[in-house]
Amino acid sequence: MSLLKVVSSKLAAEVDQELMGPGVGFTLPQLMELAGFSVAQAVTREFPPGSVSIDKSVFVIAGPGNNGGDGLVCARHLKLFGYNPVVYYPKRSERNEFYKQLVNQLNFFKVPVLPNEQGSTDWLEYLDPKKTLCIVDAIFGFSFKPPIREPFGTILDRLYALKGQVPIVSVDVPSGWDVDKGPITEHALKPSTLISLTVPKPCSTHLSPDTSHYAGGRFIPREFANKYGFEPFDYEGTDQVLKL
Amino acid sequence: MSLLKVVSSKLAAEVDQELMGPGVGFTLPQLMELAGFSVAQAVTREFPPGSVSIDKSVFVIAGPGNNGGDGLVCARHLKLFGYNPVVYYPKRSERNEFYKQLVNQLNFFKVPVLPNEQGSTDWLEYLDPKKTLCIVDAIFGFSFKPPIREPFGTILDRLYALKGQVPIVSVDVPSGWDVDKGPITEHALKPSTLISLTVPKPCSTHLSPDTSHYAGGRFIPREFANKYGFEPFDYEGTDQVLKL
Repeated sequence: MSLLKVVSSKLAAEVDQELMGPGVGFTLPQLMELAGFSVAQAVTREFPPGSVSIDKSVFVIAGPGNNGGDGLVCARHLKLFGYNPVVYYPKRSERNEFYKQLVNQLNFFKVPVLPNEQGSTDWLEYLDPKKTLCIVDAIFGFSFKPPIREPFGTILDRLYALKGQVPIVSVDVPSGWDVDKGPITEHALKPSTLISLTVPKPCSTHLSPDTSHYAGGRFIPREFANKYGFEPFDYEGTDQVLKL
Repeated sequence: MSLLKVVSSKLAAEVDQELMGPGVGFTLPQLMELAGFSVAQAVTREFPPGSVSIDKSVFVIAGPGNNGGDGLVCARHLKLFGYNPVVYYPKRSERNEFYKQLVNQLNFFKVPVLPNEQGSTDWLEYLDPKKTLCIVDAIFGFSFKPPIREPFGTILDRLYALKGQVPIVSVDVPSGWDVDKGPITEHALKPSTLISLTVPKPCSTHLSPDTSHYAGGRFIPREFANKYGFEPFDYEGTDQVLKL
């Protein structure tokens, strides 16, 4: 049997569940720290400090779930790497204390977290294409199911309207895409970079050929990957990302 | 006022407390993940796969507290980096569920965790100098206060007896040393490498000049370091360690 190049949203959910289940015992803060770190490392590869102006901002849009949490962690590491992240986190998880702590950590690092007034488009003022290095799209991940709820429909439309003006770095899944089928709306985002966490999802086969595609989230052993029918990646040295 | 090069055990405890307090909101799993990762990265710097046989084992000795936890995390990352860690964790924290999860994670990665029978010296069989790349000393950290309790007195004596035969990589503080005063017993360990987490402790000034000294634990902003009177380190790129 040949090994899978991508795993479905269903299988990805099973992998995730087992990693955080009683047997393996990873905690959400651990996996999120490593995932967010890997996204930040991918940003440094795509936008190396020597070749771009890192005074420009990295506009991180965090969604309501774990993908958003990865974005919050990514923003903190980007700040440590000398970048200038700005975070927009419009729909904050109230049920999970840890997400509040991730925001506190950003405050500690003086990373601006924009106010989240319902329906406001003030955030667009912070997204001047001339002053923005890239957008980190951490809105939806592998558990996304349509329809897109507000305010994210509006947000994705606005990002679509910026097409070509600011590069988009998507975390795990380009937001708004169907995880298994790829872009399903006319206004689908077109990321310049995708970081597939653990293993790519089927939607990644619909990336345009000029997209930089990375594997990130280096936290599983080979046997575990093989059990689920895919091959883990041969990361180099202590790298947390691998360009595919 | 000139900035501190080292911070006392008392100040280190205050820094730690603030990082995990309600204001900043770091969780133990986050900080431990980053600290353990940095120790593993330092091991790869000191023992690069190209120049040493990484088939040899890295013998990680984990103490009962947070320093031990850093060691457990380090072992997992070393395995991911292609090394061959073996963990000895003789006195396991029962009060903290997270430490059990760290052990489960090691089992998941098939990292051997030696049995912890009281008073047994079977662990020495796994510490053959010919087959051991280095020892990671994650026994005691900055909150260590003498006297040394068993079984760690015996363990430190055994490690001392191996003097010069296997390099020792100490996490934050060479175990058995007084955090503020340095080596206080005749049989003090002599590490070949020290990774000072966040900021060096006063004992680090007693290292022999041929010790490789790294800063690790890259998780604080400059202003926070300055508030406590020290300067954070200028890590390069996405590095989690900096050779001092």
